[in-house]
Amino acid sequence: NSSFKLMAQFGHQKLVFCNDGEVGLQAIIAIHDTTLGPAIGGVRMLPYQNTDEAIDDVLRLSRGMTYKAAVAGVNLGGGNAAIIGDHRTQKNEVLLRRFGQFVDELSGTFIASLDIGTTPKDMEYLHMETKHVAGLPKSLGGSGDSAPFTAKGVYYGIKAALKELYGNDSLAGRTVAVQGAGNVGEQLIALLREENAKVYVSDIVEERLAEVANKYKAVAVSNNNIYDLDVDVYSPCALGGTVNKDTISKMRCRIIAGSANNQLRNEQEDGQLLMERKILYAPDYLINAGGLISCYSEIAGHSASRTAALTENIYEVTRSVLRKSMTENVASYHAANQIAESRIADMRKIK
Amino acid sequence: NSSFKLMAQFGHQKLVFCNDGEVGLQAIIAIHDTTLGPAIGGVRMLPYQNTDEAIDDVLRLSRGMTYKAAVAGVNLGGGNAAIIGDHRTQKNEVLLRRFGQFVDELSGTFIASLDIGTTPKDMEYLHMETKHVAGLPKSLGGSGDSAPFTAKGVYYGIKAALKELYGNDSLAGRTVAVQGAGNVGEQLIALLREENAKVYVSDIVEERLAEVANKYKAVAVSNNNIYDLDVDVYSPCALGGTVNKDTISKMRCRIIAGSANNQLRNEQEDGQLLMERKILYAPDYLINAGGLISCYSEIAGHSASRTAALTENIYEVTRSVLRKSMTENVASYHAANQIAESRIADMRKIK
Repeated sequence: NSSFKLMAQFGHQKLVFCNDGEVGLQAIIAIHDTTLGPAIGGVRMLPYQNTDEAIDDVLRLSRGMTYKAAVAGVNLGGGNAAIIGDHRTQKNEVLLRRFGQFVDELSGTFIASLDIGTTPKDMEYLHMETKHVAGLPKSLGGSGDSAPFTAKGVYYGIKAALKELYGNDSLAGRTVAVQGAGNVGEQLIALLREENAKVYVSDIVEERLAEVANKYKAVAVSNNNIYDLDVDVYSPCALGGTVNKDTISKMRCRIIAGSANNQLRNEQEDGQLLMERKILYAPDYLINAGGLISCYSEIAGHSASRTAALTENIYEVTRSVLRKSMTENVASYHAANQIAESRIADMRKIK
Repeated sequence: NSSFKLMAQFGHQKLVFCNDGEVGLQAIIAIHDTTLGPAIGGVRMLPYQNTDEAIDDVLRLSRGMTYKAAVAGVNLGGGNAAIIGDHRTQKNEVLLRRFGQFVDELSGTFIASLDIGTTPKDMEYLHMETKHVAGLPKSLGGSGDSAPFTAKGVYYGIKAALKELYGNDSLAGRTVAVQGAGNVGEQLIALLREENAKVYVSDIVEERLAEVANKYKAVAVSNNNIYDLDVDVYSPCALGGTVNKDTISKMRCRIIAGSANNQLRNEQEDGQLLMERKILYAPDYLINAGGLISCYSEIAGHSASRTAALTENIYEVTRSVLRKSMTENVASYHAANQIAESRIADMRKIK
């Protein structure tokens, strides 16, 4: 059993195996670091091939969440949970509520939120058994849909990168290629178009693409032709891994800044390649933190204006990260990691 | 990773890996079943060869505790914890208090108590971080030393077996061979001698043996010559595994009833052998439950008289178990297990 070895490697605090044969629940909850506050983390439900795969997933994602919260300036730690099973066929009320009981038994050290395979409705079931849930609908006292905040954070990230690169952050006349016209993508396009940016957009669903392109007067292109457009900003807002050694060599953008998770297929190598190609990369986990910030306001009982202020702060943090990246000649995701680590190390001193 | 497989096999609810690199803590907490109440369990500290060994230990022991609590009639579930390390060289305040924080974060689903490698002083350190500790000294509001209750329970177990075998439970003139003159052994001998039983006693420490034998007018014998004496009762109160296929063939006792844990080296085979040899075996985990009962009173806030009453109840339960064993022709430890399982299954209906 390699659990402790994996935990020791990146300093994870806790790994919890939850089992209930009667309701068919097997779940793993990982808590990486709670120096800054209780560990928030998504609850995903996926048909993992085996337990090792699920452990790797929750350990990796919980650590990512620690960094995300730290750099976003919210007082939360990092966690993640995986329910093992097919969310389309094996998810039901009793399974979710039993999982909610396991969350409740962690006495607030873990706060559950949305992830792949779980829905706002599922969070309601968890909430029937525990108050340690974030991302609830407004009707249950939650902050509701977080997509507007995510989009707003990405918008600030784009403006910060423009400022660093061109000396001003005006979007007027800038060209932005948005991959993905989903909830976040659409709201980002709305913000960009309001300030007269020229927007290209792609989506795998043709109807959706046509609808969004038409509504905001954006140029519809195919998914395969979006990442290498000659634009100021490439903004991946759907799939992960679109920034990799194959695509980077063809890119003509000056900035990459989008809402998708895990945009770099290989953080180390692709981060280095982007530096060599002088493409500014606004780290995904930093600029897409609007959703997390919204959850934090919900947990801390802050108002919408506080959420807006913390989201706006993504502008300044992104500038710091990009400056640190350039000054110290390190990849920007690495600069962001260092800022996160430094904040946690500092706060540990006063714990 | 086989954690879920092992948990599913015997219906364990939770397995928690706790890690803190800074203080050098690696610990595992297992919670088997909380149908009857929060899971109580010993915290042991041992230099396990590897993580698998520790997992096996906590899973096995937590399950045993579920059965013990169920058959003793207390409202507790079964748990166990293992701190990985050498208690003689690696135990210190910060390690224990950090472990106490992990216990606290389980919000009372696990209650820590004494086990191999931990002392009442260690429980005090845990108690500085969590109220979910049992077996505290009286000065901290605990029930103090549980040895008197353990000895009393074994005494009732012996009398119950005598009653089943001979039709009366008088100790006067009965012969009892007590292996081990430790804390529990000595107090058991005191109870037996008060009622004029004839007592043989052995101990690996010669001075201790001489002292106890002399004090209670018992016959001192060597450890190798105690299990096969021609007596009414063989009472193992020290080592586990003294009842095995080698010793059983030489035994001349009619009853086995003592305080040692895991008296049968192989539950299945040795239980069967004892039946064939018509030796009544009062299951160890049932008659040594006085310590657990004392902890339960501490947790539930019961008085010493309630502890005494629940301990006295071991007499009736032992009789039921032995009767069930004879009527249904099943080994007595098996009969005890069935009573435990039936109680849990019943109580699950009203949860």
